[in-house]
Amino acid sequence: MIGAAPGGAPILVVGSVAYDTVRTPHGEARERLGGSASHFSAAAALFAPVRLVAVVGEDFAEEDLATLRERGVDLAGLERRPGRTFRWAGAYGEDPNEARTLRTELNVFADFDPRLPEPWRHTPVVFLANIDPDLQRRVLEQVERPKLVAADTMDFWIRAKARALERALQGVDVLLINEGEIRQLTGTRHLLDAARAAQALGPRTVVVKRGEYGALVASGEDVFALPAFPVPRVVDPTGAGDAFAGGFLGYLARQIARDAALDLRCAAVAGTVVASFQVEDFSLDRLRRLTWEELRERLEAYRRLTSWESLEELA
Amino acid sequence: MIGAAPGGAPILVVGSVAYDTVRTPHGEARERLGGSASHFSAAAALFAPVRLVAVVGEDFAEEDLATLRERGVDLAGLERRPGRTFRWAGAYGEDPNEARTLRTELNVFADFDPRLPEPWRHTPVVFLANIDPDLQRRVLEQVERPKLVAADTMDFWIRAKARALERALQGVDVLLINEGEIRQLTGTRHLLDAARAAQALGPRTVVVKRGEYGALVASGEDVFALPAFPVPRVVDPTGAGDAFAGGFLGYLARQIARDAALDLRCAAVAGTVVASFQVEDFSLDRLRRLTWEELRERLEAYRRLTSWESLEELA
Repeated sequence: MIGAAPGGAPILVVGSVAYDTVRTPHGEARERLGGSASHFSAAAALFAPVRLVAVVGEDFAEEDLATLRERGVDLAGLERRPGRTFRWAGAYGEDPNEARTLRTELNVFADFDPRLPEPWRHTPVVFLANIDPDLQRRVLEQVERPKLVAADTMDFWIRAKARALERALQGVDVLLINEGEIRQLTGTRHLLDAARAAQALGPRTVVVKRGEYGALVASGEDVFALPAFPVPRVVDPTGAGDAFAGGFLGYLARQIARDAALDLRCAAVAGTVVASFQVEDFSLDRLRRLTWEELRERLEAYRRLTSWESLEELA
Repeated sequence: MIGAAPGGAPILVVGSVAYDTVRTPHGEARERLGGSASHFSAAAALFAPVRLVAVVGEDFAEEDLATLRERGVDLAGLERRPGRTFRWAGAYGEDPNEARTLRTELNVFADFDPRLPEPWRHTPVVFLANIDPDLQRRVLEQVERPKLVAADTMDFWIRAKARALERALQGVDVLLINEGEIRQLTGTRHLLDAARAAQALGPRTVVVKRGEYGALVASGEDVFALPAFPVPRVVDPTGAGDAFAGGFLGYLARQIARDAALDLRCAAVAGTVVASFQVEDFSLDRLRRLTWEELRERLEAYRRLTSWESLEELA
């Protein structure tokens, strides 16, 4: 578990808390803590206090509450309802960028109607994880003048609720989205054009997550590209995108707490490095035991991986 | 055309000179100058004198000779034989990483038996473009103590002549290879593991070309990852890998000329930037009219695209 106290501005996250069953070439994990909001929380809590709004069923285990709580995640917004917790089952082949969904049981998540505890209405940083865009908008309506709103989405909502998604995006500062999904959202294959088209829908900043190929950040006119950190073994890619979002927003939350200018590039590096830990084990297992020392070491390794000197003799 | 005189050590390239017919979403080019050695030469000649060993048929046009000559490519090793020049026809869909071969006519290339002009036997830098690995080895046998030998290969040779390829690789310092092909060569999906496995075949340095996803350089223990430069329009991806190799080796040839330590990272940046120009037009059209001013500007743009400050508050 992490040693340092997080120094960032509070982050509110709304999304799914689930029990996942995942099969990968490295093994299988059955009925383990998962869901976009869980993965995001475990990552963001490295950097800032996290407030989780989600719903679980009666079957949700005390030890899983403890896992989140120990990471410093505030569970005052975690509703427990009659019925079973959301379940997802999926499998990965050799390509970690491609998940095959085997089963989805919405269970209590089907009627999720996120309500913020009153004191949370003033949370400065908001992450709308991948849920129904109408819910994303309803959450935003409950937050008063947040400093930074980020959102994720997925192919299902792009297909099924395009209009609602476009409405939701109007209130979003940062859209984090997969490479395949931004192409689907914008109908544009060229990634920079797609990012520009997505910016035109509202978000000033668009972060394209490319899995093992890294990420691209378009913000205003600025563009930043960075490779992924190649870990020796991708045990389970599930949650990598949410962990990226957690590291990214967590880093920005620290800058917001200090009233510093937002450095989106360093935030993307933080997201990249945190995501590289996420995929090293199933469920939240790797982020749970991650130390600041390991995080710092890998940031340094990432700098070595990506740094180069000026090409002086050509300048 | 480029302005500055190239200051690098001479580079010998052996490969194909062809007439390509290419269809992409941006148009079609019929019977235009192509082939791995042509693309490589046009790129490498930006940085160093290039010596081309290849074969063409009686139909090869004087203006195409002129194109290469004007770029400073020495054609003393370009054999002209009875028959037609090698032809390739291919098409790209929306994914620039995937070429579909429509037709291959080896023609005079079928009996290509590369012979180096006597004075070229002492060329310090050698690039064995994607040809039969037995020919690659026969070329190497004709060069005396080169300082740097690089080679490319492709799926066809990996399948058809695996043994010969492994023998050829024993004399190679730098293997440049596509992502899909290194997986095929090594039977390993994980890219770092694949690079390590390829290094074990001989080359101290392995450069994995990932198309629009950039490149990975493994050299000894060191690893460097870099993203591609996202150009506004990929008109024709043909030759991007060869142009990368040309920029990469051209940059190293300049360092060899100055007896400087080889900076593989900057060389990979040079390759990346040169390849980004290559894809902006058909045939050699973009590299032909490329100026040093444009090259310098894009190197600066690439630095802006990829640079980030230390994450100080986490260190």
